Amino acid sequence: MTVGVPGDELVFLPLGGAGEIGMNFNAYGYGPPDKRQWIIVDCGVLFGREGNQPGVDVLMPDIRALTENREEVLGIIATHAHEDHIGAIAHLWPMLRCSVYATAFTARLITGKLEEAGLSAKVRVTVVPVGGSLTLGPFTLDFISITHSILEPNLLAIGTPLGVVAHTGDWKIDPDPLLGEETDAAALEKLGNDGVLALVCDSTNALVSGTSGSESTVRESLADLIGTLKGRVAVTGFASNIARLDSIAHAARMHGRKIALVGRSMQKMVQAARECGYLKDFPPVLDEIEAMELPPRKVLFLCTGSQGEPRAAMARIADDSHPNVHLAEGDTVIFSSRVIPGNELAIFDLQNQLAARGIELVTAEDHFVHVSGHPCRDELAQMYRWIRPRVAIPVHGEVRHQVAHARLAREMQVPQTLIPQNGHLFRLAPGRPQLIDEVPSGRIHLDGRVLVAEGEGLARSRRAMGHAGLLVVSLVLDGKGRVAALPTVLAEGMPQPVAEAVERAVTEAARGGGRRNDPAELAESVRRAARRAAHDAWGKKPVTRVLVTEV
Amino acid sequence: MTVGVPGDELVFLPLGGAGEIGMNFNAYGYGPPDKRQWIIVDCGVLFGREGNQPGVDVLMPDIRALTENREEVLGIIATHAHEDHIGAIAHLWPMLRCSVYATAFTARLITGKLEEAGLSAKVRVTVVPVGGSLTLGPFTLDFISITHSILEPNLLAIGTPLGVVAHTGDWKIDPDPLLGEETDAAALEKLGNDGVLALVCDSTNALVSGTSGSESTVRESLADLIGTLKGRVAVTGFASNIARLDSIAHAARMHGRKIALVGRSMQKMVQAARECGYLKDFPPVLDEIEAMELPPRKVLFLCTGSQGEPRAAMARIADDSHPNVHLAEGDTVIFSSRVIPGNELAIFDLQNQLAARGIELVTAEDHFVHVSGHPCRDELAQMYRWIRPRVAIPVHGEVRHQVAHARLAREMQVPQTLIPQNGHLFRLAPGRPQLIDEVPSGRIHLDGRVLVAEGEGLARSRRAMGHAGLLVVSLVLDGKGRVAALPTVLAEGMPQPVAEAVERAVTEAARGGGRRNDPAELAESVRRAARRAAHDAWGKKPVTRVLVTEV
Repeated sequence: MTVGVPGDELVFLPLGGAGEIGMNFNAYGYGPPDKRQWIIVDCGVLFGREGNQPGVDVLMPDIRALTENREEVLGIIATHAHEDHIGAIAHLWPMLRCSVYATAFTARLITGKLEEAGLSAKVRVTVVPVGGSLTLGPFTLDFISITHSILEPNLLAIGTPLGVVAHTGDWKIDPDPLLGEETDAAALEKLGNDGVLALVCDSTNALVSGTSGSESTVRESLADLIGTLKGRVAVTGFASNIARLDSIAHAARMHGRKIALVGRSMQKMVQAARECGYLKDFPPVLDEIEAMELPPRKVLFLCTGSQGEPRAAMARIADDSHPNVHLAEGDTVIFSSRVIPGNELAIFDLQNQLAARGIELVTAEDHFVHVSGHPCRDELAQMYRWIRPRVAIPVHGEVRHQVAHARLAREMQVPQTLIPQNGHLFRLAPGRPQLIDEVPSGRIHLDGRVLVAEGEGLARSRRAMGHAGLLVVSLVLDGKGRVAALPTVLAEGMPQPVAEAVERAVTEAARGGGRRNDPAELAESVRRAARRAAHDAWGKKPVTRVLVTEV
Repeated sequence: MTVGVPGDELVFLPLGGAGEIGMNFNAYGYGPPDKRQWIIVDCGVLFGREGNQPGVDVLMPDIRALTENREEVLGIIATHAHEDHIGAIAHLWPMLRCSVYATAFTARLITGKLEEAGLSAKVRVTVVPVGGSLTLGPFTLDFISITHSILEPNLLAIGTPLGVVAHTGDWKIDPDPLLGEETDAAALEKLGNDGVLALVCDSTNALVSGTSGSESTVRESLADLIGTLKGRVAVTGFASNIARLDSIAHAARMHGRKIALVGRSMQKMVQAARECGYLKDFPPVLDEIEAMELPPRKVLFLCTGSQGEPRAAMARIADDSHPNVHLAEGDTVIFSSRVIPGNELAIFDLQNQLAARGIELVTAEDHFVHVSGHPCRDELAQMYRWIRPRVAIPVHGEVRHQVAHARLAREMQVPQTLIPQNGHLFRLAPGRPQLIDEVPSGRIHLDGRVLVAEGEGLARSRRAMGHAGLLVVSLVLDGKGRVAALPTVLAEGMPQPVAEAVERAVTEAARGGGRRNDPAELAESVRRAARRAAHDAWGKKPVTRVLVTEV
């Protein structure tokens, strides 16, 4: 291992994905503390929870800690093309204004997103060959092929004068991934033999024993299953799992069914894969209307919406509002996917709609139609056998996953483990790796079309309205601060008897307060009276606002 | 089988629980169509989904179809004491005003709820002996002991002159339920031999193969597990599962730990069980403060809050805000419970808080610490072998469960299956059972302390505010309908740039509209301008209200 210039440090700063599954954003810095150069590994989104952040579909990391030093960011490197690794690039790039690096398939999807955002002319996306390398300032980046549930996943070996960090991205050990490269075990073993300072690694399945299984066994199982079905078949799953789409198309062809792609991202993903040289023997794709004209036993639909997303293909098929695709009694829907936590009720609603219409359901609960794309415990152990890092840094997981992962790393004889949170700044070298600072971090909400810092509290304020409504009193005062008209009350989202109780209380308070001279004081006494009346009548305290107009 | 008076009919009307797990409410009617007498079997609540009905903790059935004929309701019979079977009695009784019948433990908990509601003096709760019978008008009710995850679960054999209905309530076949009666297989077999018209049966686990397992095996597993633990142990689970509480207390004693009950419903349930003669050898219970004074290896806490309920004991222990109970690194929390769908994220948040503090987690995912209380497919098959009904009516399940259950019943040679929805009125006899009517049904929300019909749309309106905020414009007009002051805008829950865009648009619209004479027309044009400006700036359309005050 070489040693850098005295004063130089290698640091690691996760701003997303440390403590959550999603929103991955990792920064590595090199140089003296006052003049670090940074690279960013992955820049993804997290999907909002309706209960927690109502009205926010997408969240991304607050990266102000880096953008305050924008000129020192050398590039964004994407390990693979999942939304939680690339979805924030188009949103955050204007704050970073650096080049983007990825292998061809990932680059193709990033470019598509930049086009939609009107940024494709501004952002330089550089394609790195599969198995290729890249140098950015003091960093050398070797892309090592691994396997996952998408094409072209990469482990990055990040070399610096002070040592090498292995950053896994998302991975599993699929002995037969069907499409794309296999796990480059030789390169991983060599990396370990050459000495790795830190392994920054996927924790998603750190609580799951055994191995995640292979796409090839799902292919066999799907082919057997589809061979037993009689009516129309619709399969829903993650559009980005190109090997799975290929398996389903393969099973369809085997049993004399033609396929149609339903939903925009199905079309987009298949097209991107083809443009990058994959899916060369994918069968011809019918359009939805042609497909519906075939006898039911001759067709299979590949559909988006396996997570119950309300506007996706499957939701519209389930309530029979899809313009072209209609299923009926005796047809079958296969959920070739897992239930992402938080989506349970939406997915069950979808399945209940289908069941009520006599459509057969097949899910991963009752048939072998899905494997996870993340490493279970035996696979994690194998990675530690290959890499043998000095320190294990579990990311891409909630705390419970990170803790289990760190324990496993210790069992694998890793001398040190660090469990990072977003905003933790670790010095990895020189010296024993340690936490040296905490920088501002948090989440940015894509709220409608506007980026809003979580700390501004908009979603929280709306959540409070969702719970107890909004009480608004309009108070009109004359030039002398006297009440000039009967106050108007709006009790939005509140039961009628509560609204009536509030009106009485407000009228009373405004009358009693008519002799005061201070409009702010009057408004406050009206606000309190309104809120108290609501609470007495209802048991809940609504957000209460008084609008004062002076005439 | 006897035959009733010509013109008499036996009908079944579910108003809750047909299409959902929860809110069980089943009515059976007997007599001529214009003069039926009714009994109600179970009267439970459903817990609200934060995303769907924000601000609504509890839902119950809309029973107006019955209350319009209140004088003909002969009684409410509770099969067992779970909230989704008895939780609505205190809320709905004032509309029904009839007697309540249940075995002692169930009656004890119903009485407690009526006391809290100030109704105990008004409502007559009659205790039926375990294995006892009851006659209400044309109905004879035989209580047949079964097993479930609570004390004293009963299958009701409902006899009428036109035939017998077997109504299971919630059940499983636990060969060793530890406390209370075993499944009265002889009575069930005799019932089947005597001839059963309809089996109205629990569908919860109709998608799960095999059997649900026994409390006795969980007892062994918990005892082994607790023997391996070193620090303080807290076990969280359903307080109503008295056999489980007894198992945990048993395991604690075996390994030299004293127990404390943390959370109100733990105290309440243990007390109710003792008053009814159960838990005679339950160990002495320490209070929380005494328990904390013991060495960590000498104590075990039984805690409420396994579903992540924010105000329950476990949530307060997890964020260390509990007044008395404090856990630390090396202590262990066992979740001896399942994850009720919809609670995943709340439970994971809790587990992450504990993991972050170095507290060990044990869940049903990684250890055998829980069994379901509902019949899996092999148990359902056994019930059909015992009862051999003419018609199977799956209730207590979502549609997907009901459909799977009906299919299983057909495989078990049941000649007819009917899948009910709430509000479906079925004639069970005379003649072939069939749907004869649909009556008004739906849900009532307990919104704060006020009962609100779901159809009134309050929760929906609040959900809309949660999504896109509320825009309020206060418009002050003079006696001639002219704008008398600059309008005031409240853009609650909206980003600042959106609020500014709306203010500009409103000022413009009010100015332009100042020459109009019709205040309603002016308000509407201001409302539209405000909403359009918000949509243009934000991409979301907020609920928009204009308050007009005339001075």
